[in-house]
Amino acid sequence: MELKQIGIIHSPYQTKKEDPKQGKFDHEISEIELFDEYKVGLKNIEKLTHLIILYWGSQSDRQTLETKTPWSEETMGVFSTRSPNRPNPIAFCVAEVVEVKDNRLKVRNLDALDQSPLLDIKAYSAEIDAYPEARRKE
Amino acid sequence: MELKQIGIIHSPYQTKKEDPKQGKFDHEISEIELFDEYKVGLKNIEKLTHLIILYWGSQSDRQTLETKTPWSEETMGVFSTRSPNRPNPIAFCVAEVVEVKDNRLKVRNLDALDQSPLLDIKAYSAEIDAYPEARRKE
Repeated sequence: MELKQIGIIHSPYQTKKEDPKQGKFDHEISEIELFDEYKVGLKNIEKLTHLIILYWGSQSDRQTLETKTPWSEETMGVFSTRSPNRPNPIAFCVAEVVEVKDNRLKVRNLDALDQSPLLDIKAYSAEIDAYPEARRKE
Repeated sequence: MELKQIGIIHSPYQTKKEDPKQGKFDHEISEIELFDEYKVGLKNIEKLTHLIILYWGSQSDRQTLETKTPWSEETMGVFSTRSPNRPNPIAFCVAEVVEVKDNRLKVRNLDALDQSPLLDIKAYSAEIDAYPEARRKE
């Protein structure tokens, strides 16, 4: 299962330290540049208010299986967190569409580091993806 | 960017025809089997009500850039849809946790075909992932 880089993310975050813990708590604009050969795949994307963005965590550690989050002292399995470190560092983020121009999409709330390889863009659907009742039981 | 298969999905859907268009409209139970070597990564997962599941669309066409959805006659770019066909067929689904037993997770609302390779599991957070206001503008 070999991935193809389909574009590149231009973001204000140059280092892991600057990177927001989660995109939604931040309001910076990032720019997603899709490589020309994939441009036709963007048809109608300007009609969507929110997108699912998948990108590659180039700086992630793929051996990590346990981690601590910024929110707790407890050790967690990586699969019960959003840690960038995990066997397949495919980062997931919901971004708000600000502007679509040719093969470039300006979005808000993306937490990617600058130059992150873009893997996929999907329509976000409130009907199938929004679970406001989801929670972590104590 | 080479992916590792970290587990396998056991689902009631044997063929593309049986596969529900989106998991949320279906209430079947699927079972996610994580390979033993990754088991430690599940620590605390039983506390979560909802998970993000990423799996590989083995039967997807990676050359497709335009498609029609079941909901419209209009041709769409694959990136403005949820079509399984796309350059990197990483399928995304939010699933409800039903039961966790050792390295096996029973979940509801997963739309994967039986035997799909598991790529990642992440915590779903209502706070950062639920956008009930998201929509497609006409």
